[in-house]
Amino acid sequence: MTSAPRDALEFPDSDRGFLEPHLPPRDGSAPESDLPFTTLTFATSLDASLALSPGARTVLSGPQSKAMTHYLRSRHDGIIIGVGTAVADDPGLNCRITGVGGYGKPGLDGQPRPVVIDPTARWDFSDDSKLFQLCREGRGLAPWIITAVEKPNAKKQALLEKYGGRFIPVKMLRTHTGRHQVDWPDLLVTLKSNGLNSVMVEGGGQVIKSLLCPLYMSLLDSVIVTIAPTWLGEGGVVVSPDRRFDEDGNAISAARLKNVKWYPFGEDVVLCGQIKLYD
Amino acid sequence: MTSAPRDALEFPDSDRGFLEPHLPPRDGSAPESDLPFTTLTFATSLDASLALSPGARTVLSGPQSKAMTHYLRSRHDGIIIGVGTAVADDPGLNCRITGVGGYGKPGLDGQPRPVVIDPTARWDFSDDSKLFQLCREGRGLAPWIITAVEKPNAKKQALLEKYGGRFIPVKMLRTHTGRHQVDWPDLLVTLKSNGLNSVMVEGGGQVIKSLLCPLYMSLLDSVIVTIAPTWLGEGGVVVSPDRRFDEDGNAISAARLKNVKWYPFGEDVVLCGQIKLYD
Repeated sequence: MTSAPRDALEFPDSDRGFLEPHLPPRDGSAPESDLPFTTLTFATSLDASLALSPGARTVLSGPQSKAMTHYLRSRHDGIIIGVGTAVADDPGLNCRITGVGGYGKPGLDGQPRPVVIDPTARWDFSDDSKLFQLCREGRGLAPWIITAVEKPNAKKQALLEKYGGRFIPVKMLRTHTGRHQVDWPDLLVTLKSNGLNSVMVEGGGQVIKSLLCPLYMSLLDSVIVTIAPTWLGEGGVVVSPDRRFDEDGNAISAARLKNVKWYPFGEDVVLCGQIKLYD
Repeated sequence: MTSAPRDALEFPDSDRGFLEPHLPPRDGSAPESDLPFTTLTFATSLDASLALSPGARTVLSGPQSKAMTHYLRSRHDGIIIGVGTAVADDPGLNCRITGVGGYGKPGLDGQPRPVVIDPTARWDFSDDSKLFQLCREGRGLAPWIITAVEKPNAKKQALLEKYGGRFIPVKMLRTHTGRHQVDWPDLLVTLKSNGLNSVMVEGGGQVIKSLLCPLYMSLLDSVIVTIAPTWLGEGGVVVSPDRRFDEDGNAISAARLKNVKWYPFGEDVVLCGQIKLYD
């Protein structure tokens, strides 16, 4: 057992219990499905914002919730984020819980695969990107970049592959505004066929919103939302799905959860549940 | 003890305990303040909406939360709403908890005073309005209507006074867009001087937002927010305060709570706290 780096996080057993029913099975025994166990997880303010503005690093939830996020990472094979978050945050996307690979244990056991959805391969990463720093230090895995670009930039590809990452080209749809739309079933099947039996989707707003639509929400096995007792104010990065209407054209709620549990956690609350599908 | 009407609500003692620290003192002993004990309370979706659209009756929280709201009403002398809510919902604004006046007890003991903020006196109430039906049935008090109009319509005034309500003219400010802006300290002092030692502000969105601004939020003694595990979707009536900035022009969170408690309550969660004021 090597000693854990100073930024290692503790997440006590007493806090792990409540999450267990909402996590992928521990024995890794996936059912015969082509899909990975998929968890949607994020933290918002009382006014449903992820951040003060796109790209603004916003400390929203408390230290306990941060440790929880890293624990969740240790329980999933992959973490999915959108390119907006990668560009804005230069995130590490590793797991810093004491006892995983790189944090008190040799190897990379328990480290999730970062998966960045980058339709146009615009993320301008370099050797200095946090993700690759962590790779060099043996504290994280290199990312897979999901893109609609068939032949990404060769230099970027070489850099990515140097660290053990890669581009994964997929077909994407286009919305009427020209925006790329992830074909979630296709993406998730691709990830599972590449060895990820469980994934957690962390953000940002667009990625979360695209999953909370009627077409895709049934793909979610678990939803874990942390809410902080703060209003960020208007203009934040809000998580709100597209409006839904019933057959008579009346607005109805866009998405509901079932099997709901609320766990007060420090100053925050953690909501765990599953998507309630309509008949 | 008369029998309670069929629509009476039960709120068991076992649920009352957690709310007690967040409510006005039971003995009615107000401190020497000119201000009433002021509670802000409302229910939102996960995407911070009060309703699917202005005027849409939206069942958001579960039956337990509904009973809680009525219990809260029994513990305050007055309920404040904006005219938008009065017009859209035709609300009863009484208390239906078994054991208060009109609900198993003679008289109107425990019934709060409805207070409607109606700057231009536009609310077109009539004998058929729910509030006055309840007055006739001995199940609620007539409203006070807070207005900037010096001489409201005489017919409306007569109707109001027939039931024991009245117009209360106050000075109001105007925003740069011409919208009337409640002078909250003035309004609250007026209400206390008229005998309301405690008030709860229930909505709608504009009224809540006007209180969650730096100028007025210190007037709040208690904040009680119910959150339902539902996303209403974009286009709802969202509660999000105006953005705040620090001295360097950076966005900061608009409002925070302290002494926070979260109480899972049926499918919902109830958040209780106090406004954290900045130094």
